Amino acid sequence: MQKYNILVGQSGGPTAVINCSLYGVIKESLDSDVIDKVYGMKNGIEGFLRGEIMDLGEFFSDPDKLELLKQTPSAFLGSCRYKLPPIDETEIYEEMFEKFEEYGIGAFLYIGGNDSMDTAGKLSAYAKRHGSHIRFLGVPKTIDNDLVGTDHTPGYGSAAKYIASTIRDISIDAGTYDIKSVTIVEIMGRHAGWLCAASALARNKHVHNPMLIYLPETPFHFERFVSDVKEALKKENNVVVCVSEGIRDSEHRLICEYSGKAEVDSFGHKKLTGAAKLLEEAVMNGIPGVKCRSIEFSLLQRSSSVLASGRDKEEAEQVGRFAVRSVIAGESHQMVCMERAEGDEYKIDYVLKDVAEIGNKEKMIPSWWITKNGTDVTDEFIDYVRPLIEGECDIRFSDGMPEYVYRD
Amino acid sequence: MQKYNILVGQSGGPTAVINCSLYGVIKESLDSDVIDKVYGMKNGIEGFLRGEIMDLGEFFSDPDKLELLKQTPSAFLGSCRYKLPPIDETEIYEEMFEKFEEYGIGAFLYIGGNDSMDTAGKLSAYAKRHGSHIRFLGVPKTIDNDLVGTDHTPGYGSAAKYIASTIRDISIDAGTYDIKSVTIVEIMGRHAGWLCAASALARNKHVHNPMLIYLPETPFHFERFVSDVKEALKKENNVVVCVSEGIRDSEHRLICEYSGKAEVDSFGHKKLTGAAKLLEEAVMNGIPGVKCRSIEFSLLQRSSSVLASGRDKEEAEQVGRFAVRSVIAGESHQMVCMERAEGDEYKIDYVLKDVAEIGNKEKMIPSWWITKNGTDVTDEFIDYVRPLIEGECDIRFSDGMPEYVYRD
Repeated sequence: MQKYNILVGQSGGPTAVINCSLYGVIKESLDSDVIDKVYGMKNGIEGFLRGEIMDLGEFFSDPDKLELLKQTPSAFLGSCRYKLPPIDETEIYEEMFEKFEEYGIGAFLYIGGNDSMDTAGKLSAYAKRHGSHIRFLGVPKTIDNDLVGTDHTPGYGSAAKYIASTIRDISIDAGTYDIKSVTIVEIMGRHAGWLCAASALARNKHVHNPMLIYLPETPFHFERFVSDVKEALKKENNVVVCVSEGIRDSEHRLICEYSGKAEVDSFGHKKLTGAAKLLEEAVMNGIPGVKCRSIEFSLLQRSSSVLASGRDKEEAEQVGRFAVRSVIAGESHQMVCMERAEGDEYKIDYVLKDVAEIGNKEKMIPSWWITKNGTDVTDEFIDYVRPLIEGECDIRFSDGMPEYVYRD
Repeated sequence: MQKYNILVGQSGGPTAVINCSLYGVIKESLDSDVIDKVYGMKNGIEGFLRGEIMDLGEFFSDPDKLELLKQTPSAFLGSCRYKLPPIDETEIYEEMFEKFEEYGIGAFLYIGGNDSMDTAGKLSAYAKRHGSHIRFLGVPKTIDNDLVGTDHTPGYGSAAKYIASTIRDISIDAGTYDIKSVTIVEIMGRHAGWLCAASALARNKHVHNPMLIYLPETPFHFERFVSDVKEALKKENNVVVCVSEGIRDSEHRLICEYSGKAEVDSFGHKKLTGAAKLLEEAVMNGIPGVKCRSIEFSLLQRSSSVLASGRDKEEAEQVGRFAVRSVIAGESHQMVCMERAEGDEYKIDYVLKDVAEIGNKEKMIPSWWITKNGTDVTDEFIDYVRPLIEGECDIRFSDGMPEYVYRD
């Protein structure tokens, strides 16, 4: 049997566990007798087009170094936000497939979110049309949890764990003074509120925050918001409010755009910032005398190695391993999906689904997981999300800080 | 020998280890044969004046619960920012000392920063003047590290560890795309730059950020800042800049006041926010085409249990224990200070210093620990701060989150 090489890339926004999927790909490939080399593209297909690739088997010849990859946050290979043109514009595809031949690539794995699945789908459609032997598979990754076809996405559980733990810490900290206070925390999520919804896990018998949760799935009204906060302050001195960055009004206008500052990235996504700040102003104007502050989690929610979820890390590795086993079995044009088994015990099955059905789509929180008043999530959502944050990580430290592995 | 009761309070801003000092006080008191009860004031002297106290020996009769206190961030007893009047205004003091008698208090310990030492100093001066037998001792606590008379303050090491680790994570995350980017991180510190300076620990052979560090100790110039960032971008694609919230111009005007929004708390301290946002705007205007974002660490830098420093926790406990031993030995009107032994090996001695010499003063970073260009710290500072972040904590989790103990 002729051996072939595998090419793997990471794309889109980083997560705390995207490198666990890379670890899974490398480990499973090195253990296989049909795969020769595992090449990594630096900065996704953008770097690949510039010929920037690395031999991962060689780089990680020290097993200890490879283990460190599992606790290293952000995309080890670097990432990109590069959108391929339609496959009728053949020039760039010809260039890529020539390069694939040059490096003896038999399979291409792309670890990423919706945009990356768009890339994997186009490459695979082009391969089909032109009779290429190369197999293309998508490996899911996004803190946003908005990929269709999968119970959840690797990366989400760790971000959810960071958010829940940190909201609990904020609630305890903000409650230290015996005064009325409102703390508004802005959480990532352009269109889907999965991350913000996970803040509900912060609650326990003693911590009642977040008292209010605002998601992009429910239209936002400033006046109703101020009155919600007033009501919450009647019950608790210390009110923590969680909002998705992508909350919008009933005309679908983003709240953060009220400040007139939203920018746009190369996929046409708006760069969102400032919803919490605007809400802070609304509280200060609408409820005089109350201490109010806003906090944005920003990059911190996707890059914490110490608050990564053990289960999320394990699953991220497994989707990488499953992807390698699948291409070896001859699969292509698919994404690895996770299916949750029915019943009380949490169990995941790994399956494949057509990647073209996944790219460029977004999964929202279903309406029955949001309370009628639109400011909280239901117990069913809690049952869904709680298992995803379970399991701690034994992190290796050096010089007082978590130890990571670096590309250069 | 007649037994007496001890009264302990926490005051000022919370830290990740302020409860370790409380733990030390409780443990040492319960182990002593001259102390009967350990009373905790809820929300400092403000709550005490309302009669809100709790019997800590009774509350923590379960040793397991007491152990959890050590990993619980924020002030377990609650805090206040209550400034006592001069001791000539006797009314409030009479009220307090009556209450002390009522509860059989023989010693009063106040865990806090400069303002709290002002409180301890006034009570102790009043006691001296009026011949009271009650002993008053200050137990240092502040993430700001700005107390005079002590090598460093409990709370600082943990915040420094959070800042260093998180800046490293941010640098790795921000470097994931192959584009020029500037990330500006705002770190606590009104007058002294100790916390922001600790960000230098984020650097290693692979991580060169923060490329620039701006401290309140050095006057800030917008034009010089933009030109510093331009220079940094020539060396690195991914530039992380750390700024103290309290940076000010050569006329001592706070940079964050340029936005005209600073508020004032009851000690007359300005509530600072927004310096990083203003610097972000300066970069976007001055260096077009560069991706720029700003991040405020806000409460997160003082409330992370998982990134607390093991050494800081241990020292925080020891200052609490030493305070109890000192009042038992008859000491009063002092604050527990830490003295670092000379030599290569890190070692701390606990000593007492006159509390009146400490309250209302602030220790700045000495000029010889700041580089000549004012945008970095020296190796001597690194040698000073590195030992403080060492040591990891074995945190108990439940349901996927750190487990804490709550007052109610």
